Amino acid sequence: MPRILSKRVMVIGVVAATFTPLTPEGEINLSVIGPYIDYLIEKQNVKSIFVNGTTGESVSLSLAERKALAEDWCHKAKGKMDQVIVHVGCMCLRDSQELACHAAQIGADGIAVISPSFFKPSTAAFLREVASAAPTLPFYYYHLPAMTGVNVPVRDVLNDIEELVPSFRGIKFSGCDLMDFGQCVSKSRPHWAVVYGVDEQLLAGLAMGANGAVGSTYNYVGSYMNKLMTAFENGDQLQARAIQFKLQELLSFAMKNRFDVGVNKQLMSDVSGLSLGPPRLPLVQCPQDYAKSIFQKYNSLFQDSR
Amino acid sequence: MPRILSKRVMVIGVVAATFTPLTPEGEINLSVIGPYIDYLIEKQNVKSIFVNGTTGESVSLSLAERKALAEDWCHKAKGKMDQVIVHVGCMCLRDSQELACHAAQIGADGIAVISPSFFKPSTAAFLREVASAAPTLPFYYYHLPAMTGVNVPVRDVLNDIEELVPSFRGIKFSGCDLMDFGQCVSKSRPHWAVVYGVDEQLLAGLAMGANGAVGSTYNYVGSYMNKLMTAFENGDQLQARAIQFKLQELLSFAMKNRFDVGVNKQLMSDVSGLSLGPPRLPLVQCPQDYAKSIFQKYNSLFQDSR
Amino acid sequence: MPRILSKRVMVIGVVAATFTPLTPEGEINLSVIGPYIDYLIEKQNVKSIFVNGTTGESVSLSLAERKALAEDWCHKAKGKMDQVIVHVGCMCLRDSQELACHAAQIGADGIAVISPSFFKPSTAAFLREVASAAPTLPFYYYHLPAMTGVNVPVRDVLNDIEELVPSFRGIKFSGCDLMDFGQCVSKSRPHWAVVYGVDEQLLAGLAMGANGAVGSTYNYVGSYMNKLMTAFENGDQLQARAIQFKLQELLSFAMKNRFDVGVNKQLMSDVSGLSLGPPRLPLVQCPQDYAKSIFQKYNSLFQDSR
Amino acid sequence: MPRILSKRVMVIGVVAATFTPLTPEGEINLSVIGPYIDYLIEKQNVKSIFVNGTTGESVSLSLAERKALAEDWCHKAKGKMDQVIVHVGCMCLRDSQELACHAAQIGADGIAVISPSFFKPSTAAFLREVASAAPTLPFYYYHLPAMTGVNVPVRDVLNDIEELVPSFRGIKFSGCDLMDFGQCVSKSRPHWAVVYGVDEQLLAGLAMGANGAVGSTYNYVGSYMNKLMTAFENGDQLQARAIQFKLQELLSFAMKNRFDVGVNKQLMSDVSGLSLGPPRLPLVQCPQDYAKSIFQKYNSLFQDSR
Repeated sequence: MPRILSKRVMVIGVVAATFTPLTPEGEINLSVIGPYIDYLIEKQNVKSIFVNGTTGESVSLSLAERKALAEDWCHKAKGKMDQVIVHVGCMCLRDSQELACHAAQIGADGIAVISPSFFKPSTAAFLREVASAAPTLPFYYYHLPAMTGVNVPVRDVLNDIEELVPSFRGIKFSGCDLMDFGQCVSKSRPHWAVVYGVDEQLLAGLAMGANGAVGSTYNYVGSYMNKLMTAFENGDQLQARAIQFKLQELLSFAMKNRFDVGVNKQLMSDVSGLSLGPPRLPLVQCPQDYAKSIFQKYNSLFQDSR
Repeated sequence: MPRILSKRVMVIGVVAATFTPLTPEGEINLSVIGPYIDYLIEKQNVKSIFVNGTTGESVSLSLAERKALAEDWCHKAKGKMDQVIVHVGCMCLRDSQELACHAAQIGADGIAVISPSFFKPSTAAFLREVASAAPTLPFYYYHLPAMTGVNVPVRDVLNDIEELVPSFRGIKFSGCDLMDFGQCVSKSRPHWAVVYGVDEQLLAGLAMGANGAVGSTYNYVGSYMNKLMTAFENGDQLQARAIQFKLQELLSFAMKNRFDVGVNKQLMSDVSGLSLGPPRLPLVQCPQDYAKSIFQKYNSLFQDSR
Repeated sequence: MPRILSKRVMVIGVVAATFTPLTPEGEINLSVIGPYIDYLIEKQNVKSIFVNGTTGESVSLSLAERKALAEDWCHKAKGKMDQVIVHVGCMCLRDSQELACHAAQIGADGIAVISPSFFKPSTAAFLREVASAAPTLPFYYYHLPAMTGVNVPVRDVLNDIEELVPSFRGIKFSGCDLMDFGQCVSKSRPHWAVVYGVDEQLLAGLAMGANGAVGSTYNYVGSYMNKLMTAFENGDQLQARAIQFKLQELLSFAMKNRFDVGVNKQLMSDVSGLSLGPPRLPLVQCPQDYAKSIFQKYNSLFQDSR
Repeated sequence: MPRILSKRVMVIGVVAATFTPLTPEGEINLSVIGPYIDYLIEKQNVKSIFVNGTTGESVSLSLAERKALAEDWCHKAKGKMDQVIVHVGCMCLRDSQELACHAAQIGADGIAVISPSFFKPSTAAFLREVASAAPTLPFYYYHLPAMTGVNVPVRDVLNDIEELVPSFRGIKFSGCDLMDFGQCVSKSRPHWAVVYGVDEQLLAGLAMGANGAVGSTYNYVGSYMNKLMTAFENGDQLQARAIQFKLQELLSFAMKNRFDVGVNKQLMSDVSGLSLGPPRLPLVQCPQDYAKSIFQKYNSLFQDSR
């Protein structure tokens, strides 16, 4: 029986973009996924995840690894989490289609696709072809211009998007052009999720009308950012800003040096106690001293955390 | 008797960055300044101005012209407006110092300085030297990275800034990096103005804690943006967004084609009825058909304006 | 018996970066490869090829397709061509290793690797790991900063490169920073190939010391560019420039509109009479009118070609 | 009696872009200009200069200072040097016109204009207006995209340029897009100078057809670069490259740290023994240790110099 695509907005609140657990030797480590999910729910009050995205180093994984990971995340989150969105974007359309099809089979709650970033894309045509491989799954477009170099305004991609992609259900907007984001909110349909993905300026995204947040830092500051969202909704701007400024201070500190997925993953291991392992080449492991100084900064800012 | 520098925040609310009125032949046209001030007060509810900035084409004016304009704006606004901030930034430090000194003589309420943009600057040292030429005037740093290419985080410029520049009183932040803006708000002193300068995403700047707005569009949507600020303060996010989205729609429309100071100036002439004249080379006049289509777009969005 | 890695420079002269032949439906079309090789040899005087590179849309191909193509190119070129270099670069290290290993099995004359371009790389470490999967094959680093955004100077990558990558045999340098290129030539070992990859300024690369040229336009102007190289070697700067300026005029014409792999592939089909088919998404087919106008331009410049 | 504009190419060979001598206190120091000219002629075999350009920190000078400097350079070079080209580019058209007019009065051999870089230009219209203020002086367009951000292809600026600017006599092309440079050479008229301005890849510019070289390093490696040009003309590519690679090694060394006009000026002071003084803000003086290490590098590469 074909699944009926709901017209309810499904991605709301704080969503963690998960890291991919690896063994010290660099193999995918499925044994950490269960405890990871429990940690997010119990310690961070995070009930939705975005897996195999940028944070999950998906471009550094083989297709087989991406499938194994997606399946395990979906399986173990079932009944515990609200939403598991599987990122299926690839440079190669056929690979994306294969992953999209697989995501439908394993019971993902939705799929997301980033623009190809080597050849600059006919974005909408590419999205249409991927979505057509999994027509029953809610489909999200993932906009990350700082890494892809694709600066097509998302508002232009949205024109007639539901005709091209009937399963279209929203955007993960991880850019700083808030005019474009605002126009996306303004043009959005009631059943779309328009979620913001630049953690360090989430408050700005909320002001512009975001109905959710997806990001890597929510792995370890999710409980705080949930409070930020509540404060914003209650009109308590001062409290919302106070939390936002703490995250900004942490990231400003890190960015003075280096803040890539390798560093970020190490911080999550330190905060959570989970063994997430090293990143994969071309990323390299965070030096130990540096890891320690960031963890100290985190503790000084979020000492009452968890 | 030396003026005593107040520690009251002086730049608040909506501030128009004024265009420089020229005759059709391209000479500065002081006769328009009086009516321009009246228009802003009466029709746009705007009571503070930022003159000889980017919008005022200051880089295309001679020093003598900048002085004549600054003097006339200060003279005619006296008793009518709250604040006249004179931008005195130049590539050449000595020219900036000469303008700073002149601004003090003519009774400006403050001066602002943009980073030099040909040679990338030792920003703080440059600011110190300009400010020292007018130590009794409130001093503002003007950050406009998209045009200057100066991407030094403003939060770093602020370190010890009051030791370098005792007259420092705030920032005009016209960039999209809201983590940096948030950190400026977070580090700001009670007597600083931290005003945001990207009109099309003002709401984001307010969420992050801006206590004012400076921009070119406030010449013709100032009354609306005053309402946006009030709505935001009252917690009416929906109304605030509705206004913001209108301005975004106008600028999205314009940016599909071209939206530079020449086009912007023509739109202000059309909306206000003031004769602001053409821009100066290297800017060129807005083609008539295009001017008409933007003016129509403006009217369709802001028809109940004024 | 393990192959002994020669210390002879092997990539010299003009090398065509081949397009990937597709059927009208978008499947890989191996039947065109034989005639393609004959065309290059007979009509363009080109005897070496670089397959599955940027021009070959390798990022848009599945691993299985890349293997099938590489195998067919190697098999059919055997005994006819001097060198078949197989590009095995991927975002995912393990995929690159798999392709490198396969290239050794099918008798490729060398492998080349582009920097990963999503996560910015520890270039040398990544290269080492790929090369270690095919230690008996000459290894080339492929530098294409305009598309990868990886601006690490190649001269820095070369430091101790032979310790990291014993099979290192040279660089395909497709960038415009000729100081960096010159420093690579200056630091190169006698058994390295230092080939230049910006066709429209090949003459500049030769002046700086390139001992070869790899590019997509050599598919259809290879015979001319061979003459350019000969003229340069003979000290006939005027003739060398005359040929270079023709190619520049063709590409200037195309770049006013659009010159991507889709357009380029169509031009090759038109010039050669081979049926190379459309490009793959995210690239789209060249509009017919535009294809016609570029082909006319080509004919007006190179009418006495072949 | 109006000067008749010659149609002879006047800028050829190696031209030094001069530094502006300042006193330790930062005032312009005309007393150094005479010895500076003698040094260039006697020690560097350089007989033409380009004054008040980027290297001369013209954007940091007042109009009065630029005039005083231009006059002194022209006066003291008279009868000794072949050509004194005065750069008169400003952001403000009227300032540029004033300087152009002044250059004609003081007997400059030509004027050059860089594109305005704050507002992106209608380049050709701007050039026309400056040139019209000094119609009897040979006029050169100065292209420096890395600093101006003006990426309009120069080949497009050249279309009909002699109708707009009858006194047009050539280009100082200081960019790395050698297709554009080649097309300028290809389109150039016999009486134009097409000189290349990226010292570290001069050899590439020569291969493409440059008939001269303007740059800052020719202040201290002019004698070497004269030899490079002779070697290139004589077909001695190996010697030409050997010299080019030395300059590249010097600049690679400097660029690892910082190589701006401040550092460059210090190196010239050290090499020549002239007291050129510090740079002006926003540039800052080169730290002593760093100055020493660059000077040592220079000496190790060019020990037999002068």
